[in-house]
Amino acid sequence: MSAEFLNMRNFEFKPIGVIHTPFKEKSETPIQFSRSTALGEIEVFPEFEEGLTGIEELSHIILIYVFHEALNSNSLLVKPFLDEKKHGIFATRYYTRPNPIGFSVVKLIERNGTRLQVEWVDMLDGTPLLDIKPYVPEFDVHKVDKLGWYAARAHK
Amino acid sequence: MSAEFLNMRNFEFKPIGVIHTPFKEKSETPIQFSRSTALGEIEVFPEFEEGLTGIEELSHIILIYVFHEALNSNSLLVKPFLDEKKHGIFATRYYTRPNPIGFSVVKLIERNGTRLQVEWVDMLDGTPLLDIKPYVPEFDVHKVDKLGWYAARAHK
Repeated sequence: MSAEFLNMRNFEFKPIGVIHTPFKEKSETPIQFSRSTALGEIEVFPEFEEGLTGIEELSHIILIYVFHEALNSNSLLVKPFLDEKKHGIFATRYYTRPNPIGFSVVKLIERNGTRLQVEWVDMLDGTPLLDIKPYVPEFDVHKVDKLGWYAARAHK
Repeated sequence: MSAEFLNMRNFEFKPIGVIHTPFKEKSETPIQFSRSTALGEIEVFPEFEEGLTGIEELSHIILIYVFHEALNSNSLLVKPFLDEKKHGIFATRYYTRPNPIGFSVVKLIERNGTRLQVEWVDMLDGTPLLDIKPYVPEFDVHKVDKLGWYAARAHK
């Protein structure tokens, strides 16, 4: 391993909550959240309730979470669900990543205290939640010029 | 602390690279990446080079990284740069988060092996990089109905 990699320190994160979804097995999860209409519930642990202040005024939120059942794969080339060819893991959203961190945008339907009812979930039931951020079109909507292998696949 | 929080296990991540930017001090970083035209360079460690296969065919990529100089703040209510009122941390993009994980979309200009030249950087020089994902409009572009406190602020 390179000296740069070895010299880097690890970072430790502790979940702020859990995501409850209808998907108990990996085979049941939708391929991407934009294709999911599934309902889920985010349970934020009580010590973080104050951090949710005002979140009910947002219709879309970003979830950062752990692919906690991702296999410890060392393969950096993967065959995503949407294609039959192998691609570099960083050119895909596949879950067997060097750092198994997931990213999804969900619709926020309702907040009841520390419980958030959401739509569009695509992750496994019991997924550990690391962060919630507001989805803000001014920051998050971009026009792309090149879409790589997704260009042929994204609308199939 | 709640039993649920205490029972959750920690997750450890090791950076896959470093983000080089013109910003040496927190006071110099742009408020949000959509307002930044700064150029930066992503240095991916050599052991992950294969994972970049095909990434040069994408014009926009998502970076997941560590706010490594975030103060260890326990405050869950923060006053973001764009407003003068306090908001729940999860309703803002502020960096003093329970898990200091950052998320930015950047334009990929050029790839030279493990070096990616990018535009729109907004993070500190030397930021530890945890993951790179393709930005895919089909998954990542959404129309919002409610924007909370950003509604008044986002376009100022």
